[in-house]
Amino acid sequence: MAKGGSSYRISATPVTIFVHLLAISIATLSLVWLIKFREGFAFNSRIKAKIFNLHPLLMILGFLLFSGEAIVVYKAIPANRKAQKTVHLILHFIALAAGILGVYAVFKFHNEVHLPNMYTLHSWIGLSTISLFGLQWLLGFFTFFYPRAESTTRANMAPWHAFFGIVLFFMTIVTAETGLTQKFIFQGLLRSQEALMINFTGLLILLFGIFVGLSVILPRRNY
Amino acid sequence: MAKGGSSYRISATPVTIFVHLLAISIATLSLVWLIKFREGFAFNSRIKAKIFNLHPLLMILGFLLFSGEAIVVYKAIPANRKAQKTVHLILHFIALAAGILGVYAVFKFHNEVHLPNMYTLHSWIGLSTISLFGLQWLLGFFTFFYPRAESTTRANMAPWHAFFGIVLFFMTIVTAETGLTQKFIFQGLLRSQEALMINFTGLLILLFGIFVGLSVILPRRNY
Repeated sequence: MAKGGSSYRISATPVTIFVHLLAISIATLSLVWLIKFREGFAFNSRIKAKIFNLHPLLMILGFLLFSGEAIVVYKAIPANRKAQKTVHLILHFIALAAGILGVYAVFKFHNEVHLPNMYTLHSWIGLSTISLFGLQWLLGFFTFFYPRAESTTRANMAPWHAFFGIVLFFMTIVTAETGLTQKFIFQGLLRSQEALMINFTGLLILLFGIFVGLSVILPRRNY
Repeated sequence: MAKGGSSYRISATPVTIFVHLLAISIATLSLVWLIKFREGFAFNSRIKAKIFNLHPLLMILGFLLFSGEAIVVYKAIPANRKAQKTVHLILHFIALAAGILGVYAVFKFHNEVHLPNMYTLHSWIGLSTISLFGLQWLLGFFTFFYPRAESTTRANMAPWHAFFGIVLFFMTIVTAETGLTQKFIFQGLLRSQEALMINFTGLLILLFGIFVGLSVILPRRNY
């Protein structure tokens, strides 16, 4: 995907810096939202909303932000290819682990308050995303990391790995936006401080997606 | 964006055919949903839901599907560059006109039933998308169509035009998915035939987005 980058006359560096700033903003905004406007977090509690809150926490701060940071690693870290690959792999592994725990949290919440599972578009796209993400991670691990495929196979697989990675990241953004939309309406929000918190979180997540995408097509710096 | 296409060893042709099939499916599914499960359409009616229904109709069949078809034109139509550009421009103009009418319809509905406007994430992302879409259309028209910029300017602008176009299309998909999610919850749906109609429309729209994106990066056929 980076090949077309020569047509763009700016480097990816300022874009990756902006991605980090957006990540910090999204993390801050959603923590303030969940702690100050909602009930905070707990894995076991009589206040069931605390169990639910683990879901957006783990999905946004864990799955979404770590996925994005894993994608920009190739443009953001001044290191050799092997080091970049290792960080890419580790960040995606943290994302996957947080994502699985985040899915578990919302199932636990639904079961404890006797709500049905898996009836919304958000849940359908979300579960597809994380399942395919797990598959992509395993395929990537065995092809590019250990034991590694032959170099021609790797060269053929690399653009598809990048394309499916971007698709999964795009699906992650869609899942986050539909999730925030659902939460907004289930809470019966209209115009309020909390409504603004949720909407701005959604806007920043959209920008995060756009700038991660831009970092992919811009040329990397020469080290 | 198409430069990296040489790394992918398949042509865009089967992908653009699949995009057309998805467009037909999405149009059919959303028409059946809005006519059979909802109340159909009217611009003026005492059944206000008929006015609302114009919004998803114009946004999905008009804005979203025409935008996608306009993007794949360069890979789907065996014609010279000038003809492709003209069709690209016209399809995007139809999308823009349908989109503006679709936004008007939902404002008209809200005003007639005394609901507030512009408080949801869906509305924020949606209005941003269509406004920037109008701007991008005008910039594209003057730069690439008439009076046209100098060839070096056009060469510098082209990748940015493509990037912002993909970003706006991505924002259109996000808007559609959040819109379907909202409608689902406002209708109080759980597990029902209508719920499945809405969720499958959402899944097909997601696939449409992914395959339009894939058509962009795959190499065009040689004519």
